[in-house]
Amino acid sequence: GRMGEGFELVTPDREFSLGVRVLNQVDFKDFIPNDLDPAISGLYLPRTRFYFSGRLTRPVEYEVSFQRSVEGVLDLLDGFVNFAIDEGFQIKFGRSIVPYSFDWYDHLEPYFITPERSLFPLNLGLSRQAGLMAWGYLGEGRLEYAVGGFSGGSIGIADDNTTRDAVGYLNWRPFLHTDRFPALRFLNLGGSMAGGRSVRPESERPIPFRTSIQSTENSREAAAASITFFDFEEDVRQLGSRFQGALHLAYYGGGWSIESEVQAGRFQYARLGTPIRPEVPVVGYHVTAAYFLTGEEIPDRTTIIPLRPFDPAHGLFGPGAVEAFARISQLHLGEEVFAFELANPADWTRNTYLTDIGFNWYLNRFVKFYVDWQHANFGSPVLVNEADGTRSRHNDLFWVRCQIWF
Amino acid sequence: GRMGEGFELVTPDREFSLGVRVLNQVDFKDFIPNDLDPAISGLYLPRTRFYFSGRLTRPVEYEVSFQRSVEGVLDLLDGFVNFAIDEGFQIKFGRSIVPYSFDWYDHLEPYFITPERSLFPLNLGLSRQAGLMAWGYLGEGRLEYAVGGFSGGSIGIADDNTTRDAVGYLNWRPFLHTDRFPALRFLNLGGSMAGGRSVRPESERPIPFRTSIQSTENSREAAAASITFFDFEEDVRQLGSRFQGALHLAYYGGGWSIESEVQAGRFQYARLGTPIRPEVPVVGYHVTAAYFLTGEEIPDRTTIIPLRPFDPAHGLFGPGAVEAFARISQLHLGEEVFAFELANPADWTRNTYLTDIGFNWYLNRFVKFYVDWQHANFGSPVLVNEADGTRSRHNDLFWVRCQIWF
Amino acid sequence: GRMGEGFELVTPDREFSLGVRVLNQVDFKDFIPNDLDPAISGLYLPRTRFYFSGRLTRPVEYEVSFQRSVEGVLDLLDGFVNFAIDEGFQIKFGRSIVPYSFDWYDHLEPYFITPERSLFPLNLGLSRQAGLMAWGYLGEGRLEYAVGGFSGGSIGIADDNTTRDAVGYLNWRPFLHTDRFPALRFLNLGGSMAGGRSVRPESERPIPFRTSIQSTENSREAAAASITFFDFEEDVRQLGSRFQGALHLAYYGGGWSIESEVQAGRFQYARLGTPIRPEVPVVGYHVTAAYFLTGEEIPDRTTIIPLRPFDPAHGLFGPGAVEAFARISQLHLGEEVFAFELANPADWTRNTYLTDIGFNWYLNRFVKFYVDWQHANFGSPVLVNEADGTRSRHNDLFWVRCQIWF
Repeated sequence: GRMGEGFELVTPDREFSLGVRVLNQVDFKDFIPNDLDPAISGLYLPRTRFYFSGRLTRPVEYEVSFQRSVEGVLDLLDGFVNFAIDEGFQIKFGRSIVPYSFDWYDHLEPYFITPERSLFPLNLGLSRQAGLMAWGYLGEGRLEYAVGGFSGGSIGIADDNTTRDAVGYLNWRPFLHTDRFPALRFLNLGGSMAGGRSVRPESERPIPFRTSIQSTENSREAAAASITFFDFEEDVRQLGSRFQGALHLAYYGGGWSIESEVQAGRFQYARLGTPIRPEVPVVGYHVTAAYFLTGEEIPDRTTIIPLRPFDPAHGLFGPGAVEAFARISQLHLGEEVFAFELANPADWTRNTYLTDIGFNWYLNRFVKFYVDWQHANFGSPVLVNEADGTRSRHNDLFWVRCQIWF
Repeated sequence: GRMGEGFELVTPDREFSLGVRVLNQVDFKDFIPNDLDPAISGLYLPRTRFYFSGRLTRPVEYEVSFQRSVEGVLDLLDGFVNFAIDEGFQIKFGRSIVPYSFDWYDHLEPYFITPERSLFPLNLGLSRQAGLMAWGYLGEGRLEYAVGGFSGGSIGIADDNTTRDAVGYLNWRPFLHTDRFPALRFLNLGGSMAGGRSVRPESERPIPFRTSIQSTENSREAAAASITFFDFEEDVRQLGSRFQGALHLAYYGGGWSIESEVQAGRFQYARLGTPIRPEVPVVGYHVTAAYFLTGEEIPDRTTIIPLRPFDPAHGLFGPGAVEAFARISQLHLGEEVFAFELANPADWTRNTYLTDIGFNWYLNRFVKFYVDWQHANFGSPVLVNEADGTRSRHNDLFWVRCQIWF
Repeated sequence: GRMGEGFELVTPDREFSLGVRVLNQVDFKDFIPNDLDPAISGLYLPRTRFYFSGRLTRPVEYEVSFQRSVEGVLDLLDGFVNFAIDEGFQIKFGRSIVPYSFDWYDHLEPYFITPERSLFPLNLGLSRQAGLMAWGYLGEGRLEYAVGGFSGGSIGIADDNTTRDAVGYLNWRPFLHTDRFPALRFLNLGGSMAGGRSVRPESERPIPFRTSIQSTENSREAAAASITFFDFEEDVRQLGSRFQGALHLAYYGGGWSIESEVQAGRFQYARLGTPIRPEVPVVGYHVTAAYFLTGEEIPDRTTIIPLRPFDPAHGLFGPGAVEAFARISQLHLGEEVFAFELANPADWTRNTYLTDIGFNWYLNRFVKFYVDWQHANFGSPVLVNEADGTRSRHNDLFWVRCQIWF
C-alpha cells in the first residue's frame, strides 16, 4: 500500500495532513469474434477511485477511499488506520488490501504492467477485507513482512459469513544494499499464504471466473465486460475451508520489469441441500515481462516520469514513455468441479491459458494508456454466447485503457 | 461541459490542478390535487453532486464526479479525460454528457431557467454515457461542434445492451464577432442528432415518462417525486433502432434568455416473447423565456452575480437577482404505443402539454431559489392515483427548489 | 449539528469556504456465547463519512456529507443550507438530523460516550430526514430551540410514504451565565417531541430492533453486526399515526459527563390485508455517566484534547485521555405487539435491559478507542440462533471500536 503524490493539505507543524488522490480508468474492449453473449464489445469504466489519506500526528496514518467499479455501485474501498510505531513494526486496523499474493499486495492497480491481474489472483485473490495486521520493513528495507487476521468473504464488503482468516506475506530483496551484484539490487523473492473457513453459506453462489475483469458482484455489467470461462451452478456456495499459497519472483532493473508468481489453493464448496462438500485444488501461475523502449528505469512498479515527455504547451513533443509487455498466465481447476457437479462441463472449462501482448504509453506522469491484445485458450469449449449456444475454445480481446492517476 | 469556479488547488507551475465543486438541490413539491399515488407532496433531494476536475499538465483535462439522485444511490456521474489539443480540436474519452439536444449539452443543470428540462429531453435525452468524442470551437467561438461514439443505454451506467451510438451536435453563433447586429451577438442556432441500436433487451422495461423528474431508475422514490403520464407494460423492452434529431434556437441579451428546441425521434420497442417490434415516432418542443427584473445581463446560461446582492453581514440588503420565466413544452407519442399494446390507453396519454410560470431568485452567486408553477394537461385521462383508480386530464405542481452551487 | 475542525479552504475575504472532515470507525465485536445466527463475531465498518461544509457568504452555511454504513451502500448523509440570519433565528432547509431526542440532536456520533445510542433512540429515533427547520440560541446561549417539518420515514432517504412530520426541541442551560452555581454551569435540561402520520405503507416491514447497531436497512450485514431482540412479522407495516416525546437531563463538569433521557411514544402499525391498526405504546430510558481519569474537563460532548498526549515523534509518552463510562438503558414495548400478532412472542421480547461498562481512550484529538462490555437481558427468551433455534434471555458483547475523526 504505497501511496504516491496527488494533492496534500498539511498543517504548519506537519502533524496533520489530508491528501487527495484520484484514479479513473476508461476501457474500450473489442471481443473477436464479436457476437458474444453476455460479453459485449464496448466502453467500460472499470475503476473510478477517490483516496483521502494522511496522518493524524506523525505516527498515525489513515486512508479512506471509495471506488465505483464496473459492476457495482460507488462503495467503500479502504478505510483503515495505520499506527507506524516504527518502520519495522506497524499496525494496520480496518479495511485494506489483504497481504496475499505479490500481484495483489506489492503495488496498486495504476502501476500494473498489464491492465488486470493474472488469472489466479484475478479470480481467487483476497482483494480488500477488514482486518488487523502487523507489517513493516526489516533490515533497512530488505525484508517486508505482513501478518494478520481478516474478515474473509469475497462477495460484498461485510463480514457475515466467516470466521477470521489468517494471512501472511514475505518479500525479500536480498541484494538491496549489496555492492557485489548491482544488477540484482531490485530482485524480489518471497511468498504468501492465507487460510480460513466459511461457516455459513453466502447468499449467492461464488463469482464466476473471468479473463479480464476484477469483480465482487456477479452483475449483468460484470458479465458484459469480460469472457466468463467458468460459472458455478446456482446451488453452489463457498462453505468450509480454504487455503492458498503463492511464491513470487520479481525483478526490476535496466528498464525491465519481470514478475512471476505461482499459486496453489484448496477451496471447499457446498451444494445447498446436499451433504456434498468437495475440496477443489486450483493451481495457477503467470510470467510477465516488460521493457521501457524509451529508457526509463524503475526500482519497482511506481510512478513513471517520462524522460522525453509529450507536453506541447511547453514545446515538448517527446514520445512520452513506452513500455512493451508480454504475459502468459494459466489457471487449472481440479476435476472435482465437474465430478461433484459444481459446474456444467458442457459449458465451462477447467483449464484456461491467457496470453497478453501489448504496450503502455505514459503521456506524462499522470496519464497512461494500456494497449493489449489478449488471447484466451480454453481446455474445453466454453459457452461464449448464451443466446445462440455457441461454444468456443479460444477468444481474442483487443483492449485499450486510458488511465489517469494522481 | 463548461465548469465555473469552486475551490481549486494548483501547483506553482500551474500544470497540475484539482478543483472541487458541489451542487445540492432540495425540492419542496406540492401536487394539486394532493391525493395522488404514487406521486406525493413533500421534500425531495433531486441532485447532490461532487465534481473533482482540473488538469494534468495543461492540455490534459479531467473530470470525475458523483451524484446522489432522488431515485437512486450515490453513483458515478462523469469520469473522463479531455485532450485539449487546441480550442478547435479536443478529444474527450470517458463518461460525460452526450452532445445531443441543446437542452442537455449547452449548459449544466445549475444554470437552468426552469427547475428541470422540457418534456422530450427530460424523458428521451441521452444523458451521460461512456464515449469517445471530438469537439471544439471554430471561427473564434462562432461554431461549436461535437461528434462522437457512445455506449448507448438509458438505464444505469454500464454498456451491456447495445452497439455504439453515433451522435453529432452543432451550435452556431453567427453574429458573435459582428458589429452590425450587436443585439444578436448571443444568438445561437443549431441542431443535433443521434442514432443507435439496442441489440439486446435491457433487464427492465424503459423508464416511465414523467413531468418533473430526471431519472435513470424506475424506483418507488422516482415515482413519488413526479406525475407519471406514460408507463410501458411490464413486458416491453427497448430493442432495435433509435434515431432522434433536434433543432434549437436560443438568444441571450438585454437581460433576456430565450431558448427553444424542437425534437423528433423514432424508437423501436419489443414485447418479450412476441415478434412485435414497432417503431414509435415521438415529437416534442419547448419555448422558454426568462428576463432579469433586476438588470443582470448574461451571454449564456452561466453563474449570475447579482448587481444588488443580499449580504447583511456587509450591510447589503439588496434584492439579489430576480429572473421571471415562462415555458411551454409538449410531447407527442405516435399511436403505435397503444396500437401495439406497449402501454394501456385507459391509464396513459400520448399527448402532454406542460406550462411553467415562475421566477428564480439568486440570493448571491452561490444560492438560487426556483419558484415554479407547473400545469400539466394530458390528451387523455392519466392514472394519477393507483390506489383509488382516479384518472385526470390535468395536474398542478407548486415547486420550490433551493440550490447551492460552487 | 456543531461541526469542529478538519481542513478548510477559505477565500481571502473569508466569505466563501469549503471544509473537509472525515469519520471512520472500525469495530471488533465478540459475542458471548459465540454460536449465534445471524449475529456473528467479527470486524465491522459501522460508519465511514465525508463531510463537506462551509459558507457561501457569511450568513449562508451549507453541509453535504456521505456515509457508508455497515448495512448499506455509500449514500447521502446530510445535504442542507442553513441561513444564519442571527444566532437566535436560523433556517435550515434540506436533509439533516431531526431535532428529536437529546441523544440524536445534541452531538454527533464521534462524541458519544458509549459506541452507540441507547435503546429507544437507537431503534426509534428519527435519524436524518429532509425538512425545513427554524432553530437558534436565545439568552446568550442559555436556550436552544428547534422546530420544523420533516419528511418522515425511517427506511431509506426518500419521502415516499408520509405526510409531513412536526418536530420540536428545547434545551435549557439555566446556569450558563450565573455565578451563583458555577458547578451547575453546564447543566442541560429539556425535551423534544415529534408527531406524524404514515399515509401509505412502506415497501418493507419496519427495521427490527437491535442492541448495538444503527441501521436504516434490514440487510444481512445489519443482522450479522448485532443481536436482534424484536422483529416484526413479514406482513407488518408502519401505517397511521406516530407520536413520541422525550425529556432529558444532562450535566458536564469536573471531568464528568452525565446524560439521561426518558422517552415515550405511540406507534401505529398495520398488518397488510387486514383491517388491524394497533397502536403500540413504547417507553425507554437511559442513564449514562462518564469520568475522565486523566483530568480533562469538557462543557459538552466535543473534541477531546488530551492533557498528556501520546506522541512518540515529539517524545511525548503520555497516556492520552482515558474516560471510564457506564450506561443502563431499557426499552419496553406494549403488549399490543404480541396481542395483535405483530411479532412472534416465542422468538422476541417486549423488554430489553442493556448495561454498558467500559472506557474510551483518546490517543490524541483525532484518534479514539471505545472499549465496551455490553450485557443484554431480555424479558423473555430471544431467538439468538436461527439455524439451531436457540433462544436466550441474555447475551454479552465485547466491543472495541477504533475511530478517527477530523
